[in-house]
Amino acid sequence: MSDEPRICGIERPGGDSSVGDVREIPTPALVVDVATMQRNIERMAGFFAAGPCRLRPHFKAHKTPEIARRQLVAGSCAGLTCATVSEAEVAASALADQLTEASGDILIANEPVGPGKCERIAKVARDVSVTVAVDSTAGLTALSDAAARAGVTVGVLVDLDVGMGRCGVQLESAVSLGRQVVAAKGLALRGVMGYEGHLVGLTERSERETRARDAMAGLVRTANLFRSDGLPCDVVSAGGTGTYDISGRVDEVTEIQAGSYVLMDSHYGRLDIPFEQAFWVLGTVVSRPEPGRCVTDCGHKSMTKDHGYPFARDVVGAAVVALNDEHATIAVPPDCGLSVGSYVYFQPSHIDPTINLHDVFYALDGDYVVAIWPIAARGYHEHRDVA
Amino acid sequence: MSDEPRICGIERPGGDSSVGDVREIPTPALVVDVATMQRNIERMAGFFAAGPCRLRPHFKAHKTPEIARRQLVAGSCAGLTCATVSEAEVAASALADQLTEASGDILIANEPVGPGKCERIAKVARDVSVTVAVDSTAGLTALSDAAARAGVTVGVLVDLDVGMGRCGVQLESAVSLGRQVVAAKGLALRGVMGYEGHLVGLTERSERETRARDAMAGLVRTANLFRSDGLPCDVVSAGGTGTYDISGRVDEVTEIQAGSYVLMDSHYGRLDIPFEQAFWVLGTVVSRPEPGRCVTDCGHKSMTKDHGYPFARDVVGAAVVALNDEHATIAVPPDCGLSVGSYVYFQPSHIDPTINLHDVFYALDGDYVVAIWPIAARGYHEHRDVA
Repeated sequence: MSDEPRICGIERPGGDSSVGDVREIPTPALVVDVATMQRNIERMAGFFAAGPCRLRPHFKAHKTPEIARRQLVAGSCAGLTCATVSEAEVAASALADQLTEASGDILIANEPVGPGKCERIAKVARDVSVTVAVDSTAGLTALSDAAARAGVTVGVLVDLDVGMGRCGVQLESAVSLGRQVVAAKGLALRGVMGYEGHLVGLTERSERETRARDAMAGLVRTANLFRSDGLPCDVVSAGGTGTYDISGRVDEVTEIQAGSYVLMDSHYGRLDIPFEQAFWVLGTVVSRPEPGRCVTDCGHKSMTKDHGYPFARDVVGAAVVALNDEHATIAVPPDCGLSVGSYVYFQPSHIDPTINLHDVFYALDGDYVVAIWPIAARGYHEHRDVA
Repeated sequence: MSDEPRICGIERPGGDSSVGDVREIPTPALVVDVATMQRNIERMAGFFAAGPCRLRPHFKAHKTPEIARRQLVAGSCAGLTCATVSEAEVAASALADQLTEASGDILIANEPVGPGKCERIAKVARDVSVTVAVDSTAGLTALSDAAARAGVTVGVLVDLDVGMGRCGVQLESAVSLGRQVVAAKGLALRGVMGYEGHLVGLTERSERETRARDAMAGLVRTANLFRSDGLPCDVVSAGGTGTYDISGRVDEVTEIQAGSYVLMDSHYGRLDIPFEQAFWVLGTVVSRPEPGRCVTDCGHKSMTKDHGYPFARDVVGAAVVALNDEHATIAVPPDCGLSVGSYVYFQPSHIDPTINLHDVFYALDGDYVVAIWPIAARGYHEHRDVA
C-alpha cells in the first residue's frame, strides 16, 4: 500500500497506510498480480528484442500510467499507442520521461475528429512527439489547421483498411491521401497503418497466420507505393496481441500495437500465445440464498460481458449464470466453501471495456496490496498535469 | 452552460463560459433533453400522486444528483433507492435538503457485504435516515455491529426472492430473519422488499400483469406473516419501470423502485409505458470510408451493447452493425447526408451501464447546452462532501 492512503478519492478502510491484505479491498475492485504482469511484459519485450520490428504497447488496454511505464522501461518499444486524445494527454503528462527519442513517441491509432480534438493533440505535441492516423481529407485538414495554428508538427500515418471494414482508406486511395499530407502545413507524413482487428481473435493458428500475412501484404504494398511515389514511409504499423508473432515477423512491418497481452482476458486466453492472466475483478459474496447459488457484488457495471460471462477463479465447478448491473450470480457445487463475505476472483472475458469501468488497480504481491495505481486515462475529458 | 466552465475536469473548448451549442460538445458524450426528462418525471409523479403507494426513484439509473433532486422535488416520493454504498454517500451529501421527513429516506435495495461497506453506511446514517436490504444472518450481523459501534440506527427490509432467482430469502425463512433483525442492536426492522426484475422487461402486458401480481402476492403474504408475528412492517417495497403501474396498484405495496423511466432506453422503449426517450450518446463521424458505411467515435466504452446495439437517431435507414471499444460502425443509405465531422445521436439499449461509462451529462434545451451535470455517484470508492 502506498504511503499516501488516499489516492483518487479512495481510502483504505481504517485509513491504515501500511501494506494491506487483499481481503481489505473494498469490492468490486480490479486487482493485478504484479509478478505475473511483469512476466508478460518481459516475454513480449523479449520477442521484439531481436528486431527489426518493435513493440508499441497499446495504452487503451489498461489506461494506467504505471503499467505503461513498465512496458516502456522493458525495452524493444517504438513508443506508445493510444486510442483517444485523453489517453495521449495522460501519457504525455505522466510518461514524458519514458517517451524519449530512444523509447519513442505517441501514436494515436485512430482518427481524431470533432470539437476540440485536433487542438488538444496540438497541445500534446508541444511536449512529446505525436503521430496520428488519418483516413480522410476532412480529418487531415482539421489536424493541419490545428497544428499550424499552434506552431507544432504532428506526424501522420495514412490508415489503410486491411480487411476489417471499419476505418481506413482502400489501397488505391492511399497514395493520393499521402500526397495531401505532405502538402499540408503542420503535418509530417511518417508512413502507413493497418489494423487486422478482424483476425486477432481467430483461434486456429493456421487461419490466423494465413489471413494476417495476406492483410500485411496489402499494407506493405501500400508502403512500397508510397516509396515509389517519393512519399516518406518509415513507419509500417499494425498488429495486436493475437497477431504479434505473425505480423511482427513480416518484413517491413516496423511496429506492433499489442495491448491485451500485458494483463490478458479469457477471450485472448483461448489462443496459443504465451501470456498469463494477470488481472481479475475481485468480488464479495453478498448473498447465499441456496446451496447451489451464490451472488457476488460485481455485475456488468464492474466487468464486461461483451465477450461472454467472466469465470470464477479457484471455485471448482462454478459457472456465472447471470450478470446484472451490480450482481454476478454463480451456480456452484453446494460444498464449494463460499459463504456470505467470501471473496471471489473473476477472470473477465474482455480487458479493455472492463478496466474502463474502474478508477484504480490494486497491485498485488501474492495476497498483499503493494500499491494503488490510478487508471488515469479513463473517460474522454481533457486531462492536464496528470504527473 | 454553467458560469463555471470547468466541472469535473471538463472544460468547453475555448473556455467560453456562455451558453454553448450542442455542436461544441467534445464527443463521445451523454446528452439529456431537459424538457423531455421533466415530462417523464412529472408523468411518473402524477401517477403516484393519488397514493397510497409512493415512488422511490432509483438513483442507479443515472447516478446524477441534479436528476434525483428534480425527481424528489416533483413529489409523490418515499425517498430515493440506491444500489451501492457510493450512491448512498453521494445522495446523502448532495440531496440532504430534499431527503427530509416529507420526501423520505435512502433505501439501499441491495445487500451490502464486504470490507468497509457497513461502516460507510453507518456514517451515512448520521446525516440521513438509511434503510438497507438484508437476506442473511451474516449480513445482518455485520450491519448491526457497524451501526452499534457508530451509535446509529439503520433501517432494514428483509429481502424476499419473488421469483427472480438472485438475492433474497424464501418466504418460509423471512419471519425468522425478521425476528433476528428485531433482536439485533443498531437495527430497526421496517418491512419487506421483493424485486420482480425478471418481469419488468416482458413486452406482453397481460403476461407482465399476471406474473407481477403473482410475485406481489408472495411479497404481501410475507408482509402479513410479519404483522401476524408482531414484527414491524410499514414498508413493502418493489417494482421497476416496467411494472410501476401494476405492482404500484397492488394493495399493501407501499413504494415502487423505478429508475429507467426518467431517461428511458430502447429496451424499455418496447413496452407500452408513457415515457419518452430523453438521453442519447452524442458521437462524431470520424470516418466515411465508403458510401454505405459511416464510423463514429462512440463505441462500447461509451455505450453498452448488453441489450443490443444502439439506434442512430434522425438517420433514416441507418443501422449500427458493429460496436468496438471506441467505434460504432453504421450501415447507411449512401445519400444519408453524413460526412466526416457530422454528429449523430445514439439511443442506447440499456441506460444503467451506459451512464456508468461517463463523468457528466450535458443538459440540453433544444440545441443549447444549459448545464453540465456531474454523474457524481459513478464508481465504487468512498465519496465525501459531494455538495
